[in-house]
Amino acid sequence: MEGELVLLDFWPSMFGMRTRIALAEKQIKYEYREEDLRNKSALLLQMNPVHKKIPVLIHNGKPVCESLIQVQYIDEVWNDRAPLLPSNPYQRATARFWADFVDKKIYDLGAKIWRSKGEEQEAAKKEFIECLKLLEGELGDKPYFGGKDFGYVDVALVPFYSWFYAYEKCGKFSIEAECPKLIAWAKRCMQKESVAKSLPDPEKIYDFVLQLKKAFGIE
Amino acid sequence: MEGELVLLDFWPSMFGMRTRIALAEKQIKYEYREEDLRNKSALLLQMNPVHKKIPVLIHNGKPVCESLIQVQYIDEVWNDRAPLLPSNPYQRATARFWADFVDKKIYDLGAKIWRSKGEEQEAAKKEFIECLKLLEGELGDKPYFGGKDFGYVDVALVPFYSWFYAYEKCGKFSIEAECPKLIAWAKRCMQKESVAKSLPDPEKIYDFVLQLKKAFGIE
Repeated sequence: MEGELVLLDFWPSMFGMRTRIALAEKQIKYEYREEDLRNKSALLLQMNPVHKKIPVLIHNGKPVCESLIQVQYIDEVWNDRAPLLPSNPYQRATARFWADFVDKKIYDLGAKIWRSKGEEQEAAKKEFIECLKLLEGELGDKPYFGGKDFGYVDVALVPFYSWFYAYEKCGKFSIEAECPKLIAWAKRCMQKESVAKSLPDPEKIYDFVLQLKKAFGIE
Repeated sequence: MEGELVLLDFWPSMFGMRTRIALAEKQIKYEYREEDLRNKSALLLQMNPVHKKIPVLIHNGKPVCESLIQVQYIDEVWNDRAPLLPSNPYQRATARFWADFVDKKIYDLGAKIWRSKGEEQEAAKKEFIECLKLLEGELGDKPYFGGKDFGYVDVALVPFYSWFYAYEKCGKFSIEAECPKLIAWAKRCMQKESVAKSLPDPEKIYDFVLQLKKAFGIE
């Protein structure tokens, strides 16, 4: 009894990827609708009038907005399989902390890397690597952030892996050289079908970034 | 069996107020430790090395950081009384959405109102009121955001009420004139002991803002 499920999304969105992964982990069927962000659908504007942003998960006609809220919603509604958040309240708080850290830091710093140059870009690269090292420290020697099973923080962070190639090409640096354990974790995640089928080809993301740079008049 | 509970906090913090309210709602005893943010304690830096910010809730020696994560943690650990989040997954998602909206919009806009002047201040006031009107629309004719009972979104938003006087004095405008229903809601919340004892006197907040303006060299 899954009801009608529609995802309004845009293929390069790391936020949309989170929701795709969570739905795939739970083996839930849904209708994927690609949005044109330069010409947003009436449905998107109606379903997310506050932020007017994808992804929007529409469940039986009712919208859930914001990717981490969608992942928690999916985990709570389909709580009979593939748990994403741990059951222990302290571990849940820790998972929420790191997912929130990804939201507060990684997206903006990644965008700064491809949008800027010179000193600004160098500063963004430095802070980006510092943040990834903090995440790598939290991961430690565990296979996944939550321990032996793939979970909430993995869902929150792994979509950015599909953007790493674009960050590296634009910033002329190697993330793997700085954070080898984090890249090993990302490759481990990519062995999961739920992740592999939800993340676009990094070369396609890089092409998309080049188009954005052109559109924004950034060399 | 509450264990040892310490809150590292700073009295004018609306984020700290959230956690104080949640603890008061659950009638949990804890040790309050005031931090000097110009000279942060070794304990604060050790317990929140990532953000180095208050509030930090330390439960049996282990830190929980970020106010909304603390409120959810408190609600999950002490789940036998005064529930803050609704039990229905869709209502939980909706509550999380509006609490997140408060975090993404209200703090920054409020700070812009007292920190800026001229056109920048006018723009901040306009957007601030627009955001409050969205919240007022979500509240509708319900006594609290979640319905008949005080809950998560109320906890997230009501601390800002103690700052409204400072915003109004600095911005020379009346929030009540624009959003009478929201102010009626805030006054309703203030009738709860958990809220009344967790929020400082608005005049004291205004004095604090005047000190900040002086320290930052803002007339």
